[in-house]
Amino acid sequence: MTYCVGLMLDEGLVFLSDTRTNAGLDNISRYRKMFTWEKPGERAIAMMTAGNLAITQAVMSILQETIDDPEVAEGDCLMTAPTMFRVAELVGEAMQSVQHKYHDTLEQHKESSSATIMVGGQRAGGAQRLFLIYAAGNFIEATEDTPYLQIGEHKYGKPILDRVITTDTPIADGIKAALLSMDSTLRSNLSVGMPLDMAVLPEGQCKFSERTRIEADNARFRALSDAWSQALRDAFSDMPDEQTI
Amino acid sequence: MTYCVGLMLDEGLVFLSDTRTNAGLDNISRYRKMFTWEKPGERAIAMMTAGNLAITQAVMSILQETIDDPEVAEGDCLMTAPTMFRVAELVGEAMQSVQHKYHDTLEQHKESSSATIMVGGQRAGGAQRLFLIYAAGNFIEATEDTPYLQIGEHKYGKPILDRVITTDTPIADGIKAALLSMDSTLRSNLSVGMPLDMAVLPEGQCKFSERTRIEADNARFRALSDAWSQALRDAFSDMPDEQTI
Repeated sequence: MTYCVGLMLDEGLVFLSDTRTNAGLDNISRYRKMFTWEKPGERAIAMMTAGNLAITQAVMSILQETIDDPEVAEGDCLMTAPTMFRVAELVGEAMQSVQHKYHDTLEQHKESSSATIMVGGQRAGGAQRLFLIYAAGNFIEATEDTPYLQIGEHKYGKPILDRVITTDTPIADGIKAALLSMDSTLRSNLSVGMPLDMAVLPEGQCKFSERTRIEADNARFRALSDAWSQALRDAFSDMPDEQTI
Repeated sequence: MTYCVGLMLDEGLVFLSDTRTNAGLDNISRYRKMFTWEKPGERAIAMMTAGNLAITQAVMSILQETIDDPEVAEGDCLMTAPTMFRVAELVGEAMQSVQHKYHDTLEQHKESSSATIMVGGQRAGGAQRLFLIYAAGNFIEATEDTPYLQIGEHKYGKPILDRVITTDTPIADGIKAALLSMDSTLRSNLSVGMPLDMAVLPEGQCKFSERTRIEADNARFRALSDAWSQALRDAFSDMPDEQTI
């Protein structure tokens, strides 16, 4: 499994993903699920993937090949697309072509072709946008009402986001909330695992302020995780007792 | 959907269930999912159900008919079974007979027959035990290492249980944790809904100390829910900022 979360805050975009993949329960590996592209000041794009690894890797290869191919028409690759909406369309089209190729044979083998991709970023002159692309190639977008998106094993980490994330959450709090959301998921589901990849894209800069791998022994993440556990336990014991209700 | 949680603490058993059922997204009803039987001082049993409502209602009907039927051999119904293990077996056998009758036709109609039942309680002279019965009629039991079981929409409410529940958690804290676990689920998943049913069975008494319906306007539950939200937000803002990690 996978857990990836993206926040679209007034101050910028925050992306966080884990790196664990598993084929069955006994074949566990580590794969990067976050990919970034940047032409500083002009555009910055981050993508995170969940689901069938062969599918999402193929989508990423197509998108990268299209960037590298000088024959591709202006506007038809991630680095020349005129808008973030077009970027989302390009990801959806790559998803459709890969699904078209493998969906039926995967089904014959009773394997799932399901895959989702989150893509967000900004182009100079455009707004920051954050999309979630489904296996069918269609997509939804984060809005003011729900300024975050999740893919993969999303349930454990949703309560904290529901409680603290609004568009005017400062970016530092957004990072903290994303890390705590991931921490809850890591604790409750073994198929989501360290290390983590994090990217932060402040609004208007078209340049990542941060692209970091957080290793399992990262002292600050562990301190945050421990402090949160302690804070939760303290908050819990401060609640009034409910011998009856 | 459904969310039910059962705790097996040294001090006793705690059961909590919601009451929302849905056939599709647009057909939402309210059904009791918690059932209790008691012969004070001799035995007390609670059951909670999740999954296909026709299946779980049929299982409950069979179990109740067997209790009411004077022809049934001693030991072959919930109220005469010699052990809690036998109680779990009886539930599993009723589940098997219902699945046998409907599984194939449900599959023809592309409906799921999946259902799970949690059953726990105590007989005079025996230990408290808590079981989770699957659709196949087999079952697992809560143990010291994991002294709680969940059925239905279990993920949102798991992090708080993972953090605070151990066998030596006092019963008042167990009630509080079960309610907060339910509260997280209610907030994040519309298909789980108020009112709630709660039962508490203190160890060694074979008599419920509490069997309560908690309505949507229950002032104490709302106060607990609000206090927990506030405590989480406070704990969150007390965390050190993570501008970088």
